[in-house]
Amino acid sequence: MNPLKELMYPRSIAVWGASNRPMKMGTIQLTNILETGFKGKVYPIHPREKEIMGLPAHRSVLEIEDRVDLALLVLPTEVVPQALEECGKAGVKYAIVVSGGFKETAREEGKLLEKKILEIARRHSMRLIGPNCLGILNSNISLSTTTIPQPPLGGGIAMASQSGAYTAMVYPMLISQGIKIHQTISVGNEADIDLVDCVDYFREEEGVRSIGLYIETIRRPREFIEVCRRTAKTKPIVAIYVGGTEAGSRSSFSHTGAITGPDELYRSLFSQAGVIVAEDMDEMVDYLFALSCQPSPSGNRMAIISNSGGPGTSLAYHAEKAGLMAPEFSPSLRGKLGEMTGPLAFVGNPIDLTFDTNVFIFKELLECLYSSGEVDGALLYGIFGPDFFVNLVKRFEEARRIAEGMTQPYTEFLASLAQVPQSHSKPLVVMSFLGQNSLAIATLRENQVPVYPSARRCSRAMHALWEYSRIKERLSSVQ
Amino acid sequence: MNPLKELMYPRSIAVWGASNRPMKMGTIQLTNILETGFKGKVYPIHPREKEIMGLPAHRSVLEIEDRVDLALLVLPTEVVPQALEECGKAGVKYAIVVSGGFKETAREEGKLLEKKILEIARRHSMRLIGPNCLGILNSNISLSTTTIPQPPLGGGIAMASQSGAYTAMVYPMLISQGIKIHQTISVGNEADIDLVDCVDYFREEEGVRSIGLYIETIRRPREFIEVCRRTAKTKPIVAIYVGGTEAGSRSSFSHTGAITGPDELYRSLFSQAGVIVAEDMDEMVDYLFALSCQPSPSGNRMAIISNSGGPGTSLAYHAEKAGLMAPEFSPSLRGKLGEMTGPLAFVGNPIDLTFDTNVFIFKELLECLYSSGEVDGALLYGIFGPDFFVNLVKRFEEARRIAEGMTQPYTEFLASLAQVPQSHSKPLVVMSFLGQNSLAIATLRENQVPVYPSARRCSRAMHALWEYSRIKERLSSVQ
Repeated sequence: MNPLKELMYPRSIAVWGASNRPMKMGTIQLTNILETGFKGKVYPIHPREKEIMGLPAHRSVLEIEDRVDLALLVLPTEVVPQALEECGKAGVKYAIVVSGGFKETAREEGKLLEKKILEIARRHSMRLIGPNCLGILNSNISLSTTTIPQPPLGGGIAMASQSGAYTAMVYPMLISQGIKIHQTISVGNEADIDLVDCVDYFREEEGVRSIGLYIETIRRPREFIEVCRRTAKTKPIVAIYVGGTEAGSRSSFSHTGAITGPDELYRSLFSQAGVIVAEDMDEMVDYLFALSCQPSPSGNRMAIISNSGGPGTSLAYHAEKAGLMAPEFSPSLRGKLGEMTGPLAFVGNPIDLTFDTNVFIFKELLECLYSSGEVDGALLYGIFGPDFFVNLVKRFEEARRIAEGMTQPYTEFLASLAQVPQSHSKPLVVMSFLGQNSLAIATLRENQVPVYPSARRCSRAMHALWEYSRIKERLSSVQ
Repeated sequence: MNPLKELMYPRSIAVWGASNRPMKMGTIQLTNILETGFKGKVYPIHPREKEIMGLPAHRSVLEIEDRVDLALLVLPTEVVPQALEECGKAGVKYAIVVSGGFKETAREEGKLLEKKILEIARRHSMRLIGPNCLGILNSNISLSTTTIPQPPLGGGIAMASQSGAYTAMVYPMLISQGIKIHQTISVGNEADIDLVDCVDYFREEEGVRSIGLYIETIRRPREFIEVCRRTAKTKPIVAIYVGGTEAGSRSSFSHTGAITGPDELYRSLFSQAGVIVAEDMDEMVDYLFALSCQPSPSGNRMAIISNSGGPGTSLAYHAEKAGLMAPEFSPSLRGKLGEMTGPLAFVGNPIDLTFDTNVFIFKELLECLYSSGEVDGALLYGIFGPDFFVNLVKRFEEARRIAEGMTQPYTEFLASLAQVPQSHSKPLVVMSFLGQNSLAIATLRENQVPVYPSARRCSRAMHALWEYSRIKERLSSVQ
């Protein structure tokens, strides 16, 4: 059985390294466990304190009478082995070793200590995450062991990472984009549990709809390919790899003790494995959100709908750059579209509605396009928000009435627009410069429509959806 | 004389197309002129209304007794010529024709109308922006003629664009990133004033420190190259070009009536012109902000400072991908750095401070690196914000005291850190996942340090700074 199935769902956690001194890493992590809303039991272990943050503290895990499911060790390197030994004796089956100072130091002493903790774990049939990691996040039980407060729990995105920062520090970035995060695993040095285990685990985890990987090295390439191919049949996997340059490789070694390979080698490995490659964390998140909520298109023919020339042209340009097509519509489709839009609009592909305030037309247009058989997906620009009225309402009572009167119907309209892609099994991606603070954009995102502030990002996310279609097709034709 | 010198600084504006009906485009634009804080005189022109938004309305511009510096025409296409004719008779020297329906329709009628308005303008020695545009924004006189409220006035970035959306709709995106905008010109169909005029104008405009161009076509290539070369000696120019694909080109024609050329042609034109190319609007804004506030490096050797392995490795990787270098430091420099950081940090390049809460070390490190002669610029990850304490302060009185006590010194520290690049004439770019809402990030931005949420964006912005160094060198060696 995959050890993560139990490790990710502890009912009780013992925490080493927390105290009543707020600026210690262990204290920060315990605080976040408590404040994020974990409902299980939490036992601080401390050599001297009687009570830590209102919880009774124990001098050793052996003194705890209840069963401890998971040990979280945030300790100086040299005392980790002893604590782990006690965990083993106490029958704890899973441990997260947050402490650094092991193999990643590239010092002989660190390497030996890492061997030692692995030997202790094996002897007691204990499974480890880390060392040199930030641990886990699991929305299903409101558990976050990381140093960063207030993770945006929820959604369908899972991530496993050889960098703790990329599973935790990114919370504010995700929040600013309205992106939620379902589960994360920071694997650190991968002394025991590694990325292969994580992918294998995420495959069977019900709420996970897309999987992201931050990779500096792959320690078990054959198993990685095998498990990714099995997983990608039902769940898309996106990876970023940052080892393949001279300085990147040097840094990566000092970071996780990993030997890296050139980009080309990894590109080919990812291609074999059915893994979509993103350039950086921000792009990976773009892809993961689209893949977690939009259907994948059966082809790359895209309709582009816009109410403004520049964004329409940019979407057409970047769609083609990204490997999509924006084919011209047939005369009969153009006829139908023209009836909806009126004579001022341009109903080629892109459709340019010009500055039309009738935003409600988007739904009709989308349904007509999806039903036409001429396109496999759509890119849309022209959503506007109530923020648009901010100056008008100061001058016109009528504008205030219009703005107030439209908020609810418009929100409902956007929610119904968001249903169109699912009901036609064709994806939709929206481009907008309005931020997450805009009610319109938040409504679309909450209804599972990805919104990006640039034509390039829209087009690349749509391309990732199409790439995933082809991956599924390839993998299913093999066996 | 460049017509924009006067056009951008009107003391009085006559506005056609505004009424007391709030949902009309002219009304929206007049509202925004008034609400953005323009201090000059504004004269609504309307055939029937006596008063519009509290301002006395005139039936014709000929009825206005004062001098009118600028005409803003937001009218149905067919009545534009008559209004312009009256402007000419009234001695108005400059007009912005917002109305569409001209050459961009690709209809004979529209082309003829565009010829006609140009003929009227020439006959009266009047200069035009548009038609089919959103007009101008000038922070210096708090003037914005566009349809979008609340532009983020200020800063040193100027933009000229063949898409109105890209000069106006982007305000919320800019605000969410803390970016200000000094001046914009939406040139529309460029019947008269074009991008060449805009670049020429921005060169002599004191507050403009970097220039962005959205381009679907260049109508006067020779003059474009010539004016850009002259301008780029002192002010960096960044362009995005979106005409060079089949669908992009089709769309662009319907949008501005422009014939486009393949990407390669334009790339070579931009290279000759000393123009930096960005992939899309978001990247252009990244570049423009860095170029508006950071010194350009004299070489591409970058120091990378981080307190976390993943971001450090990613910065090293993306710096090299972007065409920068992260060279290893000399033993003597490593010795000096090691004395500052203590034994746990890795002081190669990247420097990895590991999870060090002593953020104040960044300034010392930066000064040591800049003074070493071994690097030309720096990329930094590890700025943290008071937001970090959000959970801790709920549990620890001491954490509250620390958090409150550090806010002011930390803000002051960040402001002084932001001075280091200028005093050493070497650029600094910061990577952080904290958003603009974070006090720390806002402080850095306000003190002219660019902050980006990904290693790729940091590295590419830094590369743009270096590219500009080489452009200046090349242009100055020619003459």
